[in-house]
Amino acid sequence: MGGEAIKQQQRAQETRVRILAAAQEGFARYGYDATGVAEICARAGVSKGAFYHHFPTKQALFLELMEGWLEGLDAQLRAIHASAATVPEALRRMAATVGQVFRVGRGHLPVFLEFWSKAAREPEVWKALSAPYRRYQAYFCAIIEAGIAEGTLRAVSPEVTAQLLVSAAVGLVLQGMVDQNGADWGRVVEDVVDLILDSIERDEV
Amino acid sequence: MGGEAIKQQQRAQETRVRILAAAQEGFARYGYDATGVAEICARAGVSKGAFYHHFPTKQALFLELMEGWLEGLDAQLRAIHASAATVPEALRRMAATVGQVFRVGRGHLPVFLEFWSKAAREPEVWKALSAPYRRYQAYFCAIIEAGIAEGTLRAVSPEVTAQLLVSAAVGLVLQGMVDQNGADWGRVVEDVVDLILDSIERDEV
Repeated sequence: MGGEAIKQQQRAQETRVRILAAAQEGFARYGYDATGVAEICARAGVSKGAFYHHFPTKQALFLELMEGWLEGLDAQLRAIHASAATVPEALRRMAATVGQVFRVGRGHLPVFLEFWSKAAREPEVWKALSAPYRRYQAYFCAIIEAGIAEGTLRAVSPEVTAQLLVSAAVGLVLQGMVDQNGADWGRVVEDVVDLILDSIERDEV
Repeated sequence: MGGEAIKQQQRAQETRVRILAAAQEGFARYGYDATGVAEICARAGVSKGAFYHHFPTKQALFLELMEGWLEGLDAQLRAIHASAATVPEALRRMAATVGQVFRVGRGHLPVFLEFWSKAAREPEVWKALSAPYRRYQAYFCAIIEAGIAEGTLRAVSPEVTAQLLVSAAVGLVLQGMVDQNGADWGRVVEDVVDLILDSIERDEV
């Protein structure tokens, strides 16, 4: 590839990132519906043509933003899992990470909710939204299985335990968003995970 | 009160109910934002003057609908609590009721999410939304305390246990909405509550 082609590709990538950043800021500040493509283009300083070159629809753009946020969370979880000595230690350290989601996610979560509420009326978007849920369910299922195999967890049902962990985390994030000053939500997440672990950890022998 | 005054009051009550029903149908079908006051009036067959006589804003109307739904749920929970012999039995039967929320609530839940996502940007609505959360938290806290007092539950933290129950229920309802065909959600709720109970129930003596 020639120098000019590389520069062109760099410029295209920069434009893409600028559009994503402008959309993220607009969504967080005004909401998903209230932020139109024209508004995003004006913020990013790009033409509508450039926008549609990168994203077929505003919806596709939102899903890419969401994937980006979740990939960041996934990378954190994987790093914790890799460095923890046992599954209970990994779960306790992951709980501390969810506490960060409350602080970092404050701007994104309302947009998630708004988008989800629309998705419930648009069956074709469900698949994109249910995929991360199923991925986390499968991920925590595998972690619980690993804990049983390493002997730190009792022989609980990995499916039900993963469901409890995922649903409690989602419920707490939602509740923390609606009632930000109602509790120290990061602390509540750690307490709840401790309670779950109390019941599934094998008594030390 | 004369006969004419009573008739007038009945008509006012009928109008109020008709407006609530029309709004509920519009919200469920088209969403909260997409259903304007004019649309609600047309569906209900009332004038804008009549609407604003009953509700200062569309937001006030929504909050009244939400209160109505939650009162229905509260009444069910109280009836179960009153008729169950023990706290664990009450919690297992309540879990079966949450399964019904998935079926009945399908039309309402997207509107909840849409409204909540807006509320996150309007601090004055938070109070109205966080009140039910705090009420359920206090309610389940009292139930866990009763279970400890009657000797069916271990001496767990009532606050943390209530938090786990409420957050898991909210998380599962949200997940079930986004991924309706991903699982038999009513069954998942019962399994999750069973898992929680397994860990907090006192071993029979």
